[in-house]
Amino acid sequence: MNNKGDKFLKNISKILIKKPAQHIYEAFIDPEKIGNFWFSTSSERWKEGKTIILRYDEYNAEGSIQVLEMVENRMIRFEWGHEHVVTINFIEQNESETIVEVIEDGFNKEDENLLPYILDNKEGWVYMLCCLKAYIEHGVNDLRASLVK
Amino acid sequence: MNNKGDKFLKNISKILIKKPAQHIYEAFIDPEKIGNFWFSTSSERWKEGKTIILRYDEYNAEGSIQVLEMVENRMIRFEWGHEHVVTINFIEQNESETIVEVIEDGFNKEDENLLPYILDNKEGWVYMLCCLKAYIEHGVNDLRASLVK
Repeated sequence: MNNKGDKFLKNISKILIKKPAQHIYEAFIDPEKIGNFWFSTSSERWKEGKTIILRYDEYNAEGSIQVLEMVENRMIRFEWGHEHVVTINFIEQNESETIVEVIEDGFNKEDENLLPYILDNKEGWVYMLCCLKAYIEHGVNDLRASLVK
Repeated sequence: MNNKGDKFLKNISKILIKKPAQHIYEAFIDPEKIGNFWFSTSSERWKEGKTIILRYDEYNAEGSIQVLEMVENRMIRFEWGHEHVVTINFIEQNESETIVEVIEDGFNKEDENLLPYILDNKEGWVYMLCCLKAYIEHGVNDLRASLVK
């Protein structure tokens, strides 16, 4: 399911990356690659139905995701945090360009802390997408974990 | 003035960049450099009291800013858009690291479109800061203008 209903808001962020989708999709699911642009480590290769532990060594923090659905080189859907569902779509534009779209669903419109919560979430996704672009296009792998709270 | 009052919200974004403040400050005010991480062009060198035209060639768009105050290698303050005041602080941590902090003030809490407006603003600032970091630390200058709306 891609829609949690009217009570909830989605946070959507998209970026264009100049590489084929397969290359970018693999960067998320291969535990050797995620540390180049997002979390420090991922406990194992992502697969449908698996629970994956993601660590941020810099913040001494970790969390888990439940991988709900994967379509090779096209889509990854997982659940994390407080019943939020994240869908990452890899939308190939042509042989060398892909739009990566992140949709996080589950922000309660009536949450009194909605605004700071969703702004913080937006910050995280846009930063990850920019670090991903720098890594995929240029091999630059040390931009991550430098936002200051 | 750094505070528009209780009726308004600020949007604050910060990143750590591994270079001295002077290097980063210069990237904003030198019209030869801004195209490496933010707008396409800047009409002239930024100075207190000047009105500067900023262009996004990719979107065939342009806007102007009024430079209100500058403290060399420390702070730039300008007004743009609908009476929003932007303060960029360059906070040196040591000889080789600087926190760049962007504070945009002027979001009306009672604006019914506040949420999409401030999310879009957050997206823009975080993306600019990440592109700035990639440019300053690695000379990567082609990440900009790739967010998709």
